[in-house]
Amino acid sequence: MGDSFFKQVSDFPLMLKAALAFSKELPKIKKPSAIYISGLGGSAIGGDLVKNYLRDKIAIPITVVRDYLLPSSIKKEDLLICVSYSGNTEEALSVFKSALEKGINIAIITSGGEIHRRALKEQIPTVVVPAGLAPRSALPYLLISLLKVLEKAEVLPLQDRAILEASKFLSARKKIYDTKAKRLAKKLIGKIPIIFSSVGTTEACGYRLKCQFNENSKATAHLCVFPELDHNEIVNLARLESAASLFLLILKDEEDHERIKKRIKITKELIGKSIKESAEIRSEGEGRLCRMLSLVYFGDLVTYHLALAKKVDPREVYVIEKLKEALK
Amino acid sequence: MGDSFFKQVSDFPLMLKAALAFSKELPKIKKPSAIYISGLGGSAIGGDLVKNYLRDKIAIPITVVRDYLLPSSIKKEDLLICVSYSGNTEEALSVFKSALEKGINIAIITSGGEIHRRALKEQIPTVVVPAGLAPRSALPYLLISLLKVLEKAEVLPLQDRAILEASKFLSARKKIYDTKAKRLAKKLIGKIPIIFSSVGTTEACGYRLKCQFNENSKATAHLCVFPELDHNEIVNLARLESAASLFLLILKDEEDHERIKKRIKITKELIGKSIKESAEIRSEGEGRLCRMLSLVYFGDLVTYHLALAKKVDPREVYVIEKLKEALK
Repeated sequence: MGDSFFKQVSDFPLMLKAALAFSKELPKIKKPSAIYISGLGGSAIGGDLVKNYLRDKIAIPITVVRDYLLPSSIKKEDLLICVSYSGNTEEALSVFKSALEKGINIAIITSGGEIHRRALKEQIPTVVVPAGLAPRSALPYLLISLLKVLEKAEVLPLQDRAILEASKFLSARKKIYDTKAKRLAKKLIGKIPIIFSSVGTTEACGYRLKCQFNENSKATAHLCVFPELDHNEIVNLARLESAASLFLLILKDEEDHERIKKRIKITKELIGKSIKESAEIRSEGEGRLCRMLSLVYFGDLVTYHLALAKKVDPREVYVIEKLKEALK
Repeated sequence: MGDSFFKQVSDFPLMLKAALAFSKELPKIKKPSAIYISGLGGSAIGGDLVKNYLRDKIAIPITVVRDYLLPSSIKKEDLLICVSYSGNTEEALSVFKSALEKGINIAIITSGGEIHRRALKEQIPTVVVPAGLAPRSALPYLLISLLKVLEKAEVLPLQDRAILEASKFLSARKKIYDTKAKRLAKKLIGKIPIIFSSVGTTEACGYRLKCQFNENSKATAHLCVFPELDHNEIVNLARLESAASLFLLILKDEEDHERIKKRIKITKELIGKSIKESAEIRSEGEGRLCRMLSLVYFGDLVTYHLALAKKVDPREVYVIEKLKEALK
């Protein structure tokens, strides 16, 4: 079960490197003063990761749009990047069509489908990535393509070195991560993971992990973000009634704000009586991109192994297909 | 237990009206091209509600900042509205101080504290609201003050009529809402609420409800947003293992996108085998502001009554005090 899917999950580091080739033909794009990234699910999370990655590297606001509607604040001279792995996501198509009508600068990242056909017809800058993967497994392709579009729009300098270093580092960690992930997955059987992340640093990685628990492991997971969680969620976490089934996963990064590092420590102590089991997942490697991707890669492996340990198929997302059918 | 706190919760409609007076002295503010609202917890949720309320009414982007750090995209000519009910929230103070150093246009909404002292010294436009409430109970004051600041910045026309109508409508519904809320609260004892909300329309109301479950009811709640939830969360919701303890709360608004209305219906059917208990909460009243506030008001009452039904004190958030002490 899931052998070829294991390749999709574990090839993450190789895919980062392979993705460098897909944007070779991408033309230069006019430098925008605001960036909007439209997508859903596996096609949107790359936008969140880019937003965290660039948080203090560029002075241009980035907004991720998980909606049918184009935000009312978007201007013609802004850049809308439509990400739809299948090319047929109805929400992304809806945003794309509105943007076309309004004459907004657009770039496309897709493997094909209707959005690709329209992009060809309208001569819109497009990165075409290989088809045939689960959308969530295509993240390395979609994420690197996003960085490439931003390079072409002169928003950020060439990222090839950081990408290649992350690819190399994570390739070298593959076996160790896999072993550690299998061990952690065993502890998570029958538990609801509570993920602690931090605003700007591990936030997008935390959301990726939550969604991978949903889709790969068929498990409910709960995402909390520092410092906001200390203003509401901590109240119930400190006095849970059915805490026996909860497992705290704390994502950590060296760039977490000093006060947030302190908050993590104190919050963990304050809820310790209520949630007894926990694990810390520290980002690893040189540079912010590598560290972020280390959290994503390790988390992906954990959720894959949790599926196997629970004896569910990590690839299967049958209910999404059923939903699409019913929506027709 | 919680009698004076019941007044705080149930007086919501009266507070909307009373809040109109607090901004009478507010000077004119330079019209910005981007708006940032800084705050945490009960002081931030007004920002989310304003963002939803104005989603297609203004062409200016609104960003809510729940962080210690000022976003790198903020410019001098943008407007930063610092909301801190106590005036001593360390994250909001950190953002405020960075903005002062950078010479950014600032407005303040607070009941006092350090931020008020600094605002007086620096002659920053400030709305001072009455002190002595739980920050989450001050939402009507903070929300209306936000609208007033935006009026003064010529971002939107006078909202008094919409505010007064909402206040009147919700005052008239008080008894009915209270009875209905008590009935729903009884069903929620020992359950984990899964809140379904929709992007742009009921999203902020859903987040408010989640946080009120946390703080008032000391209950864990799980927030999912359409259409994103159909791309990940639906997978586990459709095949939950311990679904007996979950209760689905679906927030609905007449302005939900037609495709999202369809998604809500189909998603509910698809996960129906897994989550058997559910309730729909429909927004009510004339106009978007009133409808949004009807969801907030009813939700606040539900979480208050759930606390009483669980025999916990809805006012008490002792662990937040303990955390603040430990952070010193």
